[in-house]
Amino acid sequence: MVRAFARDRDWEQFHTPKNLSMALAGEAGELLAEFQWLTPEQSAAVMDDPELGPRVRAELGDVMIYLVRLADTLGIDLIDAATDKLAEAGRRYTVEAARSSAGKR
Amino acid sequence: MVRAFARDRDWEQFHTPKNLSMALAGEAGELLAEFQWLTPEQSAAVMDDPELGPRVRAELGDVMIYLVRLADTLGIDLIDAATDKLAEAGRRYTVEAARSSAGKR
Amino acid sequence: MVRAFARDRDWEQFHTPKNLSMALAGEAGELLAEFQWLTPEQSAAVMDDPELGPRVRAELGDVMIYLVRLADTLGIDLIDAATDKLAEAGRRYTVEAARSSAGKR
Amino acid sequence: MVRAFARDRDWEQFHTPKNLSMALAGEAGELLAEFQWLTPEQSAAVMDDPELGPRVRAELGDVMIYLVRLADTLGIDLIDAATDKLAEAGRRYTVEAARSSAGKR
Repeated sequence: MVRAFARDRDWEQFHTPKNLSMALAGEAGELLAEFQWLTPEQSAAVMDDPELGPRVRAELGDVMIYLVRLADTLGIDLIDAATDKLAEAGRRYTVEAARSSAGKR
Repeated sequence: MVRAFARDRDWEQFHTPKNLSMALAGEAGELLAEFQWLTPEQSAAVMDDPELGPRVRAELGDVMIYLVRLADTLGIDLIDAATDKLAEAGRRYTVEAARSSAGKR
Repeated sequence: MVRAFARDRDWEQFHTPKNLSMALAGEAGELLAEFQWLTPEQSAAVMDDPELGPRVRAELGDVMIYLVRLADTLGIDLIDAATDKLAEAGRRYTVEAARSSAGKR
Repeated sequence: MVRAFARDRDWEQFHTPKNLSMALAGEAGELLAEFQWLTPEQSAAVMDDPELGPRVRAELGDVMIYLVRLADTLGIDLIDAATDKLAEAGRRYTVEAARSSAGKR
């Protein structure tokens, strides 16, 4: 759907990986801005707020759109890339080591 | 998988939406850094580079992991949020208006 | 100094405003990463930490370097731009309105 | 001036280093968004555009404001931090090594 959206509008010319990485980071910045003045506790309840909740959901949608579009232009399968990275993180941060250091933070 | 990864390591205490929005933006920043000195053309061929390609794929994986984790803590369905946002964008940027302005950019 | 640094290394070819805005955002992302798992209270004491303090200071230096370099390539005086923006913010958020709403947050 | 601005509005309670690092990254993201669809050449001429030029200047002002405010809360001298970082970068990327590799990029 995202690919067709861009093609229908003749926007493929703008969708280089470089430009899309900027759009993705820009949307991640807008999401960040929704949380910047909230306490951790307020951020955990953000979806109960009738004004903030829908805004946060819309920003997550924007990040997802550009992430999917970027992955599509690069020929990367996002689920595979995330699964591989999670497996690598699992080897680096073993359950045992992580649990003991988490308590000390 | 991402939820279990955090729970197994006792990291749920750190995974407030506020903190996860920071982690997501930080990873989007690392992805950005891979493209910052490339020309648009070089960025389009980045997956052919034996050194850069795997790094870009790993960064996309990191962004995906934190995006999924953030959506999970907020109870947001990413596909739904992206689909709704795309429909809204379709109403705002109609195919006709977009095609004519894209040529002028 | 930053301008000479780039010229001496023949890096001016890479320092378009577009690329520098990416480098700036990338460094802001690295700074963000230093704070992402800290509580607000821990973040306030970060300079007392012998390991984190120097890292945060170095990241602030990086952000400053790219901000100055970007302003230089655009011919923008940073102090003027910030002063103008602060004056505008002062008209938008008057002291009276801000004080009463700050208490309610 | 930035410190007085926050104090006058009772906003010091929100200005933890953690929150300010988020605001800084959010503003860097807005700056990024101004450049995301421009070619490198268009980005170099952005200040000649009567609409984009003032917007870019205002975004640079915003980044500067939060960078200064963050440095102030941390007790960091930005000029010193940047100068130290530049000296370190000079040792890492010597003029000779940089010039020869810049040509190959």
